[in-house]
Amino acid sequence: MEIKFSLSDIEAFEKQDRTNLINGLSGYKSAHLIGTKNVSGLNNLAIFSSVVHIGANPPLIGFVHRPATVERHTYENIKETGHFTINHVPIELYQQAHQTSARYPRNESEFDACGFTEFYGEVLSAPYVLESPIKIGLTLEEEILVKSNQTIILIGKVQEIYLAPEFILESGVLNLSAARTLIVQGLETYYKSEKIGTLTYAKPNSTV
Amino acid sequence: MEIKFSLSDIEAFEKQDRTNLINGLSGYKSAHLIGTKNVSGLNNLAIFSSVVHIGANPPLIGFVHRPATVERHTYENIKETGHFTINHVPIELYQQAHQTSARYPRNESEFDACGFTEFYGEVLSAPYVLESPIKIGLTLEEEILVKSNQTIILIGKVQEIYLAPEFILESGVLNLSAARTLIVQGLETYYKSEKIGTLTYAKPNSTV
Repeated sequence: MEIKFSLSDIEAFEKQDRTNLINGLSGYKSAHLIGTKNVSGLNNLAIFSSVVHIGANPPLIGFVHRPATVERHTYENIKETGHFTINHVPIELYQQAHQTSARYPRNESEFDACGFTEFYGEVLSAPYVLESPIKIGLTLEEEILVKSNQTIILIGKVQEIYLAPEFILESGVLNLSAARTLIVQGLETYYKSEKIGTLTYAKPNSTV
Repeated sequence: MEIKFSLSDIEAFEKQDRTNLINGLSGYKSAHLIGTKNVSGLNNLAIFSSVVHIGANPPLIGFVHRPATVERHTYENIKETGHFTINHVPIELYQQAHQTSARYPRNESEFDACGFTEFYGEVLSAPYVLESPIKIGLTLEEEILVKSNQTIILIGKVQEIYLAPEFILESGVLNLSAARTLIVQGLETYYKSEKIGTLTYAKPNSTV
């Protein structure tokens, strides 16, 4: 039997319960590590579950950033340099990836503290995660302030992608099972995937 | 051995290959069905993989909507009524859910064409999907135009949630495995999840 929660029910929840519930509503997400470096050379690495596809041409990816919290270093570094990396997390390293969400001081690198290795390409100043199976380098294209709650949506343009060729299937489709990309739900529950099927482009006269 | 694609490599891809590749970069997402109805009573149901958590207090969820495409009915209906529903898809119904992406004419209901049942609450005019294990009703709170590619981000405020009590664990955490929420990658590959672990709030002095 289903139950119903109204907005006033939700508003009456304890803060932590409400945070967990509403975070869970958007469903499964990939857990990504976002790598940045400031102009003084201090780097930062933080886990985000809010990465979203914005468009393929031009290639744009966005992520939602809280107003001023644990991930503020990420925002500041991107604003300083215009560069950031989005790194898929291999499922084996989910504990280390989660650990990047701790509030480390500015001068402590999450790469060192959590056991990841910096990797640099030729185009961007931001560090990639060497251990990541799919590494995406981006330049800041647009910053959007969400008026409703002062969160920030940062949109980047893909400048380069590093991955193993076996992760790309026919027609450019990515094989995230082979890449062993990590899935997260809510703030702290981690999953891997099991494929159930690949479908074709849907047309109105198709039968289901 | 890894390979690198530069932006010029990506721009030189065939359109379909580029679309698949860039759609895949954001990783795994939940597949959600968004239900709407216009003021004349015509309803619409469409699958989206771009739902993203915006904030817990107030409870806000957003989704990315392409400028003017197959899902335009969703946008028009939300603008007319201010109401929409986000419905988790049970993994068993992934083929029917995918089928809602076909370009049905305006006067044909995807509920009927794809085998879903309308369900109405008392607060919103938009239809829920009866078969959905977690149904979320929202009112339009904010509309954002992404200048970089003219996509639209619609942000809704959660007004009500319908779900079975066994899908809520301690502290408000949702059990999406029990709800059997569907996962999608790219445009057409569907997955279910397998849990690997639940972690606690990370602190800098934690050991990994």
